[in-house]
Amino acid sequence: MSVTDVPGFAAAGVACGIKPGGQPDLAIVATAAGAAASAAGVFTSNKMTAAPVLVCQEHLAATGGRAAAVVLNSGNANAATGAQGMADARRMCQETAAALGVPAEHVLVCSTGLIGYPLPMGKVSDGIAAAAQSLDPRGGPHAAQAIMTTDTVPKQVFVAAEGFTVGGIAKGAAMLEPNMATMLAVLATDAAADPDALQTALRAGVANTFNALTVDGAESTNDTVLILANGQAGPVDADALIRAVADACESLALQMADDAEGSTKTVFLRVTGAASDAEAAKAARDTANCQLVKCSWYGQDPYWGRIASEMGAAGVAFDPATLTIAYGPHVVYQHGEPAHPPELAQYMTGRRLDLHVDLGMGDGAARIITTDLTHAYIDENMGTS
Amino acid sequence: MSVTDVPGFAAAGVACGIKPGGQPDLAIVATAAGAAASAAGVFTSNKMTAAPVLVCQEHLAATGGRAAAVVLNSGNANAATGAQGMADARRMCQETAAALGVPAEHVLVCSTGLIGYPLPMGKVSDGIAAAAQSLDPRGGPHAAQAIMTTDTVPKQVFVAAEGFTVGGIAKGAAMLEPNMATMLAVLATDAAADPDALQTALRAGVANTFNALTVDGAESTNDTVLILANGQAGPVDADALIRAVADACESLALQMADDAEGSTKTVFLRVTGAASDAEAAKAARDTANCQLVKCSWYGQDPYWGRIASEMGAAGVAFDPATLTIAYGPHVVYQHGEPAHPPELAQYMTGRRLDLHVDLGMGDGAARIITTDLTHAYIDENMGTS
Repeated sequence: MSVTDVPGFAAAGVACGIKPGGQPDLAIVATAAGAAASAAGVFTSNKMTAAPVLVCQEHLAATGGRAAAVVLNSGNANAATGAQGMADARRMCQETAAALGVPAEHVLVCSTGLIGYPLPMGKVSDGIAAAAQSLDPRGGPHAAQAIMTTDTVPKQVFVAAEGFTVGGIAKGAAMLEPNMATMLAVLATDAAADPDALQTALRAGVANTFNALTVDGAESTNDTVLILANGQAGPVDADALIRAVADACESLALQMADDAEGSTKTVFLRVTGAASDAEAAKAARDTANCQLVKCSWYGQDPYWGRIASEMGAAGVAFDPATLTIAYGPHVVYQHGEPAHPPELAQYMTGRRLDLHVDLGMGDGAARIITTDLTHAYIDENMGTS
Repeated sequence: MSVTDVPGFAAAGVACGIKPGGQPDLAIVATAAGAAASAAGVFTSNKMTAAPVLVCQEHLAATGGRAAAVVLNSGNANAATGAQGMADARRMCQETAAALGVPAEHVLVCSTGLIGYPLPMGKVSDGIAAAAQSLDPRGGPHAAQAIMTTDTVPKQVFVAAEGFTVGGIAKGAAMLEPNMATMLAVLATDAAADPDALQTALRAGVANTFNALTVDGAESTNDTVLILANGQAGPVDADALIRAVADACESLALQMADDAEGSTKTVFLRVTGAASDAEAAKAARDTANCQLVKCSWYGQDPYWGRIASEMGAAGVAFDPATLTIAYGPHVVYQHGEPAHPPELAQYMTGRRLDLHVDLGMGDGAARIITTDLTHAYIDENMGTS
């Protein structure tokens, strides 16, 4: 099930030669017959904002939140590419728009891959033409494939809600961090929603999913989540839309964590009992991004000392005497004393771990989804070629 | 050359059985004949403050900055050990004081090793007795050996200034981060300085050395830098003392970076042209702690894109058009364009790398000393046994 299982959407993915290995690297997701849909986006806060992000923001502002298609490429981020990069991103929209018979401003654009190299626009143009011709109402999986970088599997989701549906595709394997990640996601829904309501639903959906996901603390130049709503299913309850969008984002975020570069563990780190939600989030993120803690997950070592030390270093309020640390149901530190539950070693062998830290101070809480740090992560990131 | 090359100091290091492998694990550094010296300290800001840190702070406050000896152990951090830990740290001071014939409050104490386990006090007591008996004016190297944890070489320094000397020993291999690190250092000088002047010199010396060193962003529960000044060389120029202490700290910090867990590169990361020193420091620290950037150093890959992306993610003011990135003398990014100097590949093979990032905004500057992220780091940190 994919983005194109939502009625009224088509997609395509082709190989146009941006990736030297010949893998698929260009995708289009579009409304049927180029109908203008409500559109909303959430973007990276990195100041080295990539050209396609800037062009998306321009187009959404110009149209007041309308779009008919998204064109995406992998293998090149079109970031730190200056004026040429802006011209290339606009040209990707123009060529897609011409092929689909829609205004250029109704096309949004995403790129992912290496930073700092100009797009090979001849290949990209050929790819856009080929993808536009092969748009298919069952093409979602092809599009999902064409946006992969170091992903080992395509990421897709489909949520059937009461009277409407939400589908999506995404990519992301490293540089995954709150305020997004090197991640792209394109969602589609047949719910009718005006652009403001859609933006509200998208922000809410991203907040506890993509924005709660960190692999390595690096925030990319290109992070983008887009949603198009074609209205075919008619008006829907606002809360139901928020829930369905959040469910779709949660599924895609988990797929990203499970496929993060070199990871062998997905860890759900929950901090409760903080003085505030902000302090809980700070403690959770610092711990999730601590290399020492990540290495211990890889080694399946439940050593709580590094976690306690990270809580201490995070600058948040707590008293060591009221700190509780548990893996799944197994308390490993409480009342100032370590515990050594016998079932713990077995628990640590799981692919997914729940880690719960209670600071014993107040009602502040946060959740972070993260991964371990492994030899394979280093192998993947020692070079860029 | 070591801490005991400073006239009027003696030291010892013995094996008392805290480390299961039988390596040296207990040290004393003391003034000759137990003379009270001026003393100052700089400590971790981690809220899980270890018992020995709290006892040092108590004793320095009670004496107004006087001490005659420091007792140190490795193999156990005496951290997160509650009331028993406080009693044990005080007892280490009392037993050292009794053996040396000085007041208990004139003894300072440091511990390093695993968090959360009570000290084996029988072994520690035997070690204190043995170390006190073997205090030697050439014993610095033995003390340096006895405070090692995952260090592969002892760290020692000796600075001969105009009319006085500064010597020291230190340990530290991971959890090295601004605001110190899992690091201990004991410095000694024969300069005469009152406790306030000594504290000022120590803070200044630590600021751009130990506090500018980060290996993995983790700040430990036990970080301590102590200095004792016995006054045998008489009064000295305040600036000369600051410079000599800073030189000693710089040498020990570099020894730590070069011996950091699994590291193959020491990287001197300088950020200039920031809107403020604080923004320069933020950008430098974030980049130094970025796993992706660290992996690229390990791979000897000069890819500037990740560095530019980190600058963008750090939340500091800059314009990508005025960003300059250089490795040593080789500019890799300037005026919005990457450069590919042919000598760069050779430069990247060096053991030490200079990385200079200029943000083109103002006069803010900062320097960080850091290391790469390697397979061996993961090997060392997968488990705690």
